[in-house]
Formats: sequence, structure tokens, C-alpha cells
Amino acid sequence: MVLPSPLRIEPIEGYSPAIGRLVGMLTYARSTTFAAVQGLTIAELDHLHDASSNSIGALLAHIAVVERSYQILTFEQRNLSPHENQLWSAAVKLGADGRRLLRGRPLGGYLDELTAVRQVTLETLATRDDDWLERTVSPAPGINAHWAWFHVAEDEVNHRGQIRWLRARLPKEELRTT
Amino acid sequence: MVLPSPLRIEPIEGYSPAIGRLVGMLTYARSTTFAAVQGLTIAELDHLHDASSNSIGALLAHIAVVERSYQILTFEQRNLSPHENQLWSAAVKLGADGRRLLRGRPLGGYLDELTAVRQVTLETLATRDDDWLERTVSPAPGINAHWAWFHVAEDEVNHRGQIRWLRARLPKEELRTT
Repeated sequence: MVLPSPLRIEPIEGYSPAIGRLVGMLTYARSTTFAAVQGLTIAELDHLHDASSNSIGALLAHIAVVERSYQILTFEQRNLSPHENQLWSAAVKLGADGRRLLRGRPLGGYLDELTAVRQVTLETLATRDDDWLERTVSPAPGINAHWAWFHVAEDEVNHRGQIRWLRARLPKEELRTT
Repeated sequence: MVLPSPLRIEPIEGYSPAIGRLVGMLTYARSTTFAAVQGLTIAELDHLHDASSNSIGALLAHIAVVERSYQILTFEQRNLSPHENQLWSAAVKLGADGRRLLRGRPLGGYLDELTAVRQVTLETLATRDDDWLERTVSPAPGINAHWAWFHVAEDEVNHRGQIRWLRARLPKEELRTT
């Protein structure tokens, strides 16, 4: 599967035209997230800037579960099950539970999870067409699939902006351990 | 000109199909920026969270000049002139000059500027077609026009993520003045 040049949005071989353009956006957004966290240690991924901050690690976990949630919503056309809701609650909602539970994981763990989730997205999008992309998401009739997948990139970029801000303010001690 | 339902990405009357989908993304991103700053006072817009932070006001000024810069790059197919570079430098680069120069402006001033810039974007995009959108930007041959305009939304969302973070941490005294 040919991936796009990162600075062009255009149809991509293996996808219908509008899906290819969307894949270009998702791929670009993901590449900037990976660049923003490159080389971070566990201590840096877990660092809390203040009492109400999310750690960078928790934001990476959030990005992965948001994508999984939209896979379920748009590919499986259903809401999350109670079990999935419970399992992913800390990463979806962040805040106090995220600060307590999403810790102690090395960067590679977060990146592997993001890569595995994205693989499912790309493989499934390759089986759909532009008509599907425009269709209303049946368990969430206020949105269509194209908005849902735009939103996956958009929410990731929102948190990437926060990750860049937080990374620039990591304690010097922790920076020296990288 | 009919604007999209904010939670659907689809062709929009008055634009070619891929441009309409892009306009839906730009419009959604902008609506979330406006929501993120609603009701802020001048003191809140100027507040600096720490010595290296950008104020929320400076980030709004940045969002507007980024859009203007990409208008010049893609609609006029040229780089910024030395005069434009100088005029917009503080808002493009942010940092120390932004902290010093981008202050004292009420919210309405920022929003009016954003709205005026966006109006030019929408009016011009309505005169272009999907072939134009896919074309390489001649003064920046590494990008095409579609990436350029995706990036305008993407950079805005990056800073909106920071604005939300900063707003949640505004000093209580300043919050009480709203």
C-alpha cells in the first residue's frame, strides 16, 4: 500500500479518491505526533505538569482509544459495549483516572499500540468507497463517516499541540535522562 | 453560500466537491476556536501562563496570519513580500516579540480579523476547482494546495488545543472579571 508524500493531500493508490485524501491527512497528523514524542523516557511520559494536567503518555493512550472508538462507531456501526466503555474509560475521559492508571509504560508500548490501531483503520478504509465515507453513522446520526475520521485526526492534532507545549516544559532533570 | 452542517464532511453547494469537503473541515475547526475563546476579557487574552508561553490573544493573531500567508502562497502563488514578512513576523513566529507586541486587543478585534480573513478564503475557494486544489504550490513545490489548506486547519487545531489548556488555567482573579 503506497503511503502519501506527507505534504500532499491527493488520491492514494489502494483507496477510493476521497478516502485517499483523508488517509493523507490521518497519516500526516500521526507522523507529527510521533515526531512530538520521539525519545521520551517513561519518567517524561508520566510527568504531570500540574495537578490537573494529563501526562504525555496519557494523551498518547487517549489518541489510540479515540481511533478505536471511531473504528467501532463507523466500521462496525455500533456504540461501544459496556465492557469496552469500562476498559477504555480512563484513556477516553483522561483526568483523575488517567493520572492514576495510565503510567509506567515505555514509549514503544504507546507507539506500537498506535501503529496497530492505525493498521486496522487503513486496512478497513481500503475496503470502503467514497459513498460509504459520506454516509451517516447509524449509531450517531448527527455525523457522517467522513466527519468521524476527520475528527480522529483533528482530536489527535489538538492533543499534539498540548504534547508539544508540555514537552517544552518537562523538568530539566528528566530531560537529562534521555 | 450554504455552510455545512458542522458535523458532516461532504460536498457543499457553491464549491467543487473536494473543496467543499475541505471547507467543511476549515469551518468546523474555526467554530471550535471561537467556542474556545468565547467571553475572554483583554486581561485573559493577554495573560502569560509562564515566561515562555504565548497568550491566547497571540495564538488567535497567529491563526489569522497563518491563513493570510497561505492565501498568498496558494491564491497568489507567491511568497510573502519583505513588507508582509515584517508586518506579520510577531504573529507568525510568536515567542518574545509576540509577548511584547500582541497585547491590549479586545476579543472582538481578533474575531473580526479571523472572520474577514476567512471570508477571503471562502470567496476565493469558490472560484477554484478540484484540479487546482490538487496542484503543486509553485513557490513551495514540496506541497500541494490541498495540503496547504489542510495545514491551515491543522495548525489552528494544534493551537486550539493549547488555548483550551491555557484557558483552564487562567488566574481566578481574571476569570471573575468576565
